[in-house]
Amino acid sequence: MAEREIPKYVYYFGGGRAEGSGGMKNLLGGKGAGLAEMVNLGIPVPPGFTITTEVCTAYYASGNQWPQGLAEQIDANLARLEKDMGAVFADPENPLLLSVRSGARVSMPGMMDTILNLGLNDVTAAGLIRKSNNPRFVYDSYRRFVHMYSDVVMGVPHESFEEAIAAKKRARGVKLDMELSADDLKELVAEYKAIAREHTGRDFPEDPKEQLRGAVDAVFGSWNNQRAITYRKINNIPGDWGTAVNVQTMVFGNMGDTSGTGVAFTRDPATGENVFYGEYLMNAQGEDVVAGIRTPQPISTLKEAMPGIYAELEQIYHKLEEHYRDMQDIEFTIQDGRLFMLQTRTGKRTGTAAVRIAVEMVEEGMIDEKTAVLRVPPANLDQLLHPMIDPKAKVKAFAKGLPASPGAAVGRIVFTADAAEAWAERGEKVILVRTETSPEDIGGMHAAVGILTSRGGMTSHAAVVARGMGTCCVAGCGAILISEREKKMVCGDLSLTEGDWITLNGSAGEVIEGKAPLVQPELTGNFGKLMEWADKFRTLRIRTNADTPQDSKQARTFGAEGIGLCRTEHMFFAEDRIRAMREMILSDTEEQRRGALAKLLPFQKGDFIGILREMAGLPVTIRLLDPPLHEFLPTMEQTKQISEIASEMGVSEAKVRERIQSLHELNPMLGFRGCRLGVVFSEIYEMQVRAIFEAACELTREGVQVLPEVMIPLVGTTGEMDMIREYTVRIAEDTIKEYGVKLHYLVGTMIEVPRAALVADKIARTAEFFSFGTNDMTQMAFGYSRDDAGKFLAQYIDRNVLSADPFQSLDQEGVGQLVEMGVQRGRSTRPNLKIGICGEHGGDPDSIDFFHRVGLDYVSCSPYRVPIARLAAAQAEMKNPRKAPEETCCGGSCRKNCC
Amino acid sequence: MAEREIPKYVYYFGGGRAEGSGGMKNLLGGKGAGLAEMVNLGIPVPPGFTITTEVCTAYYASGNQWPQGLAEQIDANLARLEKDMGAVFADPENPLLLSVRSGARVSMPGMMDTILNLGLNDVTAAGLIRKSNNPRFVYDSYRRFVHMYSDVVMGVPHESFEEAIAAKKRARGVKLDMELSADDLKELVAEYKAIAREHTGRDFPEDPKEQLRGAVDAVFGSWNNQRAITYRKINNIPGDWGTAVNVQTMVFGNMGDTSGTGVAFTRDPATGENVFYGEYLMNAQGEDVVAGIRTPQPISTLKEAMPGIYAELEQIYHKLEEHYRDMQDIEFTIQDGRLFMLQTRTGKRTGTAAVRIAVEMVEEGMIDEKTAVLRVPPANLDQLLHPMIDPKAKVKAFAKGLPASPGAAVGRIVFTADAAEAWAERGEKVILVRTETSPEDIGGMHAAVGILTSRGGMTSHAAVVARGMGTCCVAGCGAILISEREKKMVCGDLSLTEGDWITLNGSAGEVIEGKAPLVQPELTGNFGKLMEWADKFRTLRIRTNADTPQDSKQARTFGAEGIGLCRTEHMFFAEDRIRAMREMILSDTEEQRRGALAKLLPFQKGDFIGILREMAGLPVTIRLLDPPLHEFLPTMEQTKQISEIASEMGVSEAKVRERIQSLHELNPMLGFRGCRLGVVFSEIYEMQVRAIFEAACELTREGVQVLPEVMIPLVGTTGEMDMIREYTVRIAEDTIKEYGVKLHYLVGTMIEVPRAALVADKIARTAEFFSFGTNDMTQMAFGYSRDDAGKFLAQYIDRNVLSADPFQSLDQEGVGQLVEMGVQRGRSTRPNLKIGICGEHGGDPDSIDFFHRVGLDYVSCSPYRVPIARLAAAQAEMKNPRKAPEETCCGGSCRKNCC
Repeated sequence: MAEREIPKYVYYFGGGRAEGSGGMKNLLGGKGAGLAEMVNLGIPVPPGFTITTEVCTAYYASGNQWPQGLAEQIDANLARLEKDMGAVFADPENPLLLSVRSGARVSMPGMMDTILNLGLNDVTAAGLIRKSNNPRFVYDSYRRFVHMYSDVVMGVPHESFEEAIAAKKRARGVKLDMELSADDLKELVAEYKAIAREHTGRDFPEDPKEQLRGAVDAVFGSWNNQRAITYRKINNIPGDWGTAVNVQTMVFGNMGDTSGTGVAFTRDPATGENVFYGEYLMNAQGEDVVAGIRTPQPISTLKEAMPGIYAELEQIYHKLEEHYRDMQDIEFTIQDGRLFMLQTRTGKRTGTAAVRIAVEMVEEGMIDEKTAVLRVPPANLDQLLHPMIDPKAKVKAFAKGLPASPGAAVGRIVFTADAAEAWAERGEKVILVRTETSPEDIGGMHAAVGILTSRGGMTSHAAVVARGMGTCCVAGCGAILISEREKKMVCGDLSLTEGDWITLNGSAGEVIEGKAPLVQPELTGNFGKLMEWADKFRTLRIRTNADTPQDSKQARTFGAEGIGLCRTEHMFFAEDRIRAMREMILSDTEEQRRGALAKLLPFQKGDFIGILREMAGLPVTIRLLDPPLHEFLPTMEQTKQISEIASEMGVSEAKVRERIQSLHELNPMLGFRGCRLGVVFSEIYEMQVRAIFEAACELTREGVQVLPEVMIPLVGTTGEMDMIREYTVRIAEDTIKEYGVKLHYLVGTMIEVPRAALVADKIARTAEFFSFGTNDMTQMAFGYSRDDAGKFLAQYIDRNVLSADPFQSLDQEGVGQLVEMGVQRGRSTRPNLKIGICGEHGGDPDSIDFFHRVGLDYVSCSPYRVPIARLAAAQAEMKNPRKAPEETCCGGSCRKNCC
Repeated sequence: MAEREIPKYVYYFGGGRAEGSGGMKNLLGGKGAGLAEMVNLGIPVPPGFTITTEVCTAYYASGNQWPQGLAEQIDANLARLEKDMGAVFADPENPLLLSVRSGARVSMPGMMDTILNLGLNDVTAAGLIRKSNNPRFVYDSYRRFVHMYSDVVMGVPHESFEEAIAAKKRARGVKLDMELSADDLKELVAEYKAIAREHTGRDFPEDPKEQLRGAVDAVFGSWNNQRAITYRKINNIPGDWGTAVNVQTMVFGNMGDTSGTGVAFTRDPATGENVFYGEYLMNAQGEDVVAGIRTPQPISTLKEAMPGIYAELEQIYHKLEEHYRDMQDIEFTIQDGRLFMLQTRTGKRTGTAAVRIAVEMVEEGMIDEKTAVLRVPPANLDQLLHPMIDPKAKVKAFAKGLPASPGAAVGRIVFTADAAEAWAERGEKVILVRTETSPEDIGGMHAAVGILTSRGGMTSHAAVVARGMGTCCVAGCGAILISEREKKMVCGDLSLTEGDWITLNGSAGEVIEGKAPLVQPELTGNFGKLMEWADKFRTLRIRTNADTPQDSKQARTFGAEGIGLCRTEHMFFAEDRIRAMREMILSDTEEQRRGALAKLLPFQKGDFIGILREMAGLPVTIRLLDPPLHEFLPTMEQTKQISEIASEMGVSEAKVRERIQSLHELNPMLGFRGCRLGVVFSEIYEMQVRAIFEAACELTREGVQVLPEVMIPLVGTTGEMDMIREYTVRIAEDTIKEYGVKLHYLVGTMIEVPRAALVADKIARTAEFFSFGTNDMTQMAFGYSRDDAGKFLAQYIDRNVLSADPFQSLDQEGVGQLVEMGVQRGRSTRPNLKIGICGEHGGDPDSIDFFHRVGLDYVSCSPYRVPIARLAAAQAEMKNPRKAPEETCCGGSCRKNCC
């Protein structure tokens, strides 16, 4: 058998050049590619080598075995490194120490493992002391190593070491780790090793080679730890990408007062302001900054403390930003007055920052408008659309922390991630309050509307994760004392317990007692510019789902080009209306029903006047009654309501009960609703149609341009469409004639029943437009009741049976086929058929990209998603350009296919 | 503008030749085509002409207007008729009288209107008296005409005339119409006209031309009367076919003792026996026979009474049967000793008769086997498969009537069609008891399991309709006095009221008190021969749905070639099993669940051993658990059961309630069921799979050939299929290894979720077979909950929004597309994918034809539908031949694609 050629598993960097480069993220991971690129750019980086992500994949595929040849390639690269560094791994006199870090294709901050100071044992420590003449530094490094290795590789609980060091500090009467002496630290090393032995029954490995092998395995293993899996699920990162392992010469920020370590961003990641932004700690190693144990210094103070280093840093960050043409997130270490860069990557940023950076980089000539539009993830705009505390409201913060993630949030406080998830599950808005957060808290952080911590800086775990999620966060609010055990937080005289309401202002770092009033942000300035560019590129129109004049107005300010879904059922719930509605439902004859409906007509007409006026000049799609009639009656258990209705209506309770019983359905989702009502009780739809056209005609008389589109819900057969269209058109024409006006209108249908997509060619014979109802279509295509699927859907995603919740992002593989079929078949009969989609998917960027590709004319989403949809539509056009409309469109009212 | 050429609207027959022929049924209607054909065969037929069905269609299309040129064509044909008959329409001295009858493409007995004796008024009546010298005959014809015309054309209630004639008979002290004198009848004519004037405010039309026009319009109008619409709906006759109108010289059976009228069949329509079979009445007109007002004489007595006429009739019927090569239903009138044929058509027959006639005609050399197989409507076999009264049971009839429609039925008596429908709606089996039935009763007759009348013969309305429906019927049971008003029937000392149980023996004409034991008929003799021929032709395999060894055995005797659906959930409901099932559901941990499931395993295994043994040598598809778990618990309202379960299980009632609550679903049809259980609680399916394979391996050891096919329900994604298949195969292989046997098995899925059809190509990567679950697929494709759709489905069919109930006959237009897609896509990945369908549609002939066409390997239906499916499959093959399998199939176990 021919021997298989062994692939290149390891890429070296150092000595002024690297085998890899910045474009090799998939193979080397983000960190490895960044290190290689910096080396190639001549930036000072401690030399080392990267084990590729392919090794990780092979490792899992073979049941946690190293692929053949990997050990040899590591040895060869280690030898090269020893030669470059003039030090030898495991050498008693001149030992080389290493850092071993994970690095996936995309950054997963804090999710995977790192081991620093690797290569230390009693012998190499002694050698290093001899060489450095700095025993405190060596034992500090040694105790860090034993702690970290025992935790990460050997699985010894973190807390054991924390307790040991705390006891040591108490014994020595000191407060900070830095105050412990070399001897103290030496003792700690021995104590740590004893703890490790006690927990694992094994001695701490003294052989550096064994240490290295264990560390590499641990990094691979950390790809599949629970918090990494959770993070990937939330961020839609495939589980088979794997992580690279970066083995790098150790540089030391803990060598004393001329050493330090820090992280920085080339622009402000919260606001996007073009300032160098970051934090550092002197005499520390990297994890001290990230973990938020000591509160670090702002980077600006480094200018004074170490002006040379600061100047070098500035030069490097400019070079990197110029090179990458994007904001960078960098890590550095100063070892005894010498600067080393440990990482550069595209910096995570808030939505606000993303917009500002993109727009300003265009203004600075760094990127073009198209790049700017492509660079802002549409979902991140959500943050800009979050409510803020009303500036006119007089609120007083009882505490101030760091403005870690902008926006404002009002919620009830909880003290554990589990509680946050549980409360959120039952519909509560919660603010997660923690001393500091850790990756284990990720689920709870996701569930919370806001996050508050008493410790940690702007780059602490809480801050980084919250910004990524777009969740408002106040971090490092030291004035607050938190007792997670007692479910209590105290700030001066104020004491709050679980369930109490607070408000966070993540933009100002303020914490406010109770519920502050929130307002919407203005969508101007950079945001407006970006939206303008997006609108220039996109071909997909964006409408909104709105049931009231208020929503319509709001949506228009967000740029909605019409209403794609105006639900009429909500209009029946107001007290004065529900009475007539119930009278209608309790009627026994068509005549009685028509009598009750006549009372509803003026209300409906008024509603439509309000909405049509607000949307003057833009199309408004009005959906006829959709829910089953029993939704307007109480349930059998609501005995009090039943007797109220009976006396109000002047009928017996038995009669009310009998009607409730007869309307009861086993599967209301698949029941007597939608156009089925319009077939059996045509008088209901007839009233609605009359109300629509009376409203439209009155406004037309006034000179208001109205473009009503009547939408028949839940059509599955041509029989339904034809019958309802027939009387709709008849009433419309009669009304238009009565008013003696000219009015353009359309009659179309929702395509939501799977059968409708299958016979779309036939339905399009009489339907003038389609609007896909992908919510219901998803329910029926999968056979999932949205109300009930919670019982298994989470587990489906956990177990990878589904890659995403199909109610959040359109199932393109399945439901998408029905949409595509509906479009193609519908247009095969009626080439100028106007086609849109109204439903949650209309505001989801991935789904919008799909709708663009299959040729929809518009998507309709909730008002607050409109800007997101505009941006997503622009990006979709850039990825898959469609022909520009042959004629210019008026922007919503020319009634060509474009609007 | 060029004048449109006027089509030929009217076809003449008479004078030894006809313009039409027997093949022109679509244009001339069945009656018109039959009359033309008889004329061409030289059979005596009163001359006349047929107005085509196209005229009817044009009439409706133009808002009840006669098409241009029709009046002229009628006049021309009338002139020709006058010439041929030597009499003149409306002539005072020598008047021609006409009959005006409907005639659709297919027979709709009693559903549409007829007007006889048309052309009479006081002047023509006087002329006819002078000519015939028979005033009684003339006034009898005249009063019949006024009655019929007023009822049918003018809309005067039938009862008014019945009351008038009854009053006249009382006044004259006579019992029968025949006993009234010419003067009495003359008075009645005047009284009838007064009644008509009173009801309509108009004079009865004296002008024969006006009479004719009114009659033609009325016949057209009767196409859309309510009972015709209902009949068409039940029999799937399109509403746009229209009816022809036959205008024919009137011949008179009421001219005295040498006149009469009758109907006959060339073979016995109930049993199929090759005898001339029929009834006649002397001195009567046609409607007297059909309406069942006087009980007619058997045709055999005519041989003695009028031997010449009888011989002529015999000659004619042989000629017609030879000509049509099928059993004929004929109508004749004897006018003063001269025979006229008024109709010939293919005779309706029971399923039993259809089978016997088809088989015997093959034996007589009249038709070939293929024709015989094509000639029996598969649905009619249902009648042969109906239960019979156990011959060993000692039952005593309390009354005897005519054996009008065979089979036996046990049900509760009701006295109105409305009651029959209402009781049947709530699940009661009812027997409709009526003095005589009328077309208005059609809905109730359909709802009843049996029909009993006290008046009327074998060709009465009740008898004809019941045979057509395959409903058991005893007609003309004169010993029973029925009071429909008092809801009571009395027979001697026995008095029964609404709701009492009786048994009908429709084959013997017997009525039995209470519930008699029923048994299944033997499927041998003619039936066996027909099935043998069907099996020779068909390529589609027929399996059965069976959950027990008993059902399996029954289905095998009916010719099932395997089990296509063995549901496993029914096995959990026996008392000893439901306990363990509930224990499982109330468990909190997987371990507890596995403990409870271990108790269920021996039961399941025993069930599978029984079924697999019964089906030795044939494939058995076993579906893993499908319903949601809450089906195994009581509802919240069943407080007694809750407390029983709690004490039995040793848990608190609160715990039971909590579990019921947490399992509650808003839309259980779309809930946590099917393979969703197998993903989340894999231990349930694991137990079932183990039970299947332990059973299969034990039987294999015994030497029984078993062919298990494990079917995963409700799969919608490849993730579900792959995950469940993985552990199914693992457990199967482990078990096979443990037993050390060789076993062939398949793992496949149901395709019922629409999405599954859309991604069938991907699912087929791991699924070895598909079985379409078209019940659920219909629910999801339409968005109709089968449990709830009753609220609108009937109205959908009434209003022609749907042409048929999609749960009874597959919706080929919509759901059929999904089936076809599933077949094509599935086989694109796995060309030898075995594909079947299990569900109600598997026993529906139209659906079977579709499944044959799209290339399914088999259909699976309930045991009693298996013969129907075999016949339908044979007919499907004849209509659309598929390639015969290249190699001979073993008949169900060779595991080639054929079985």
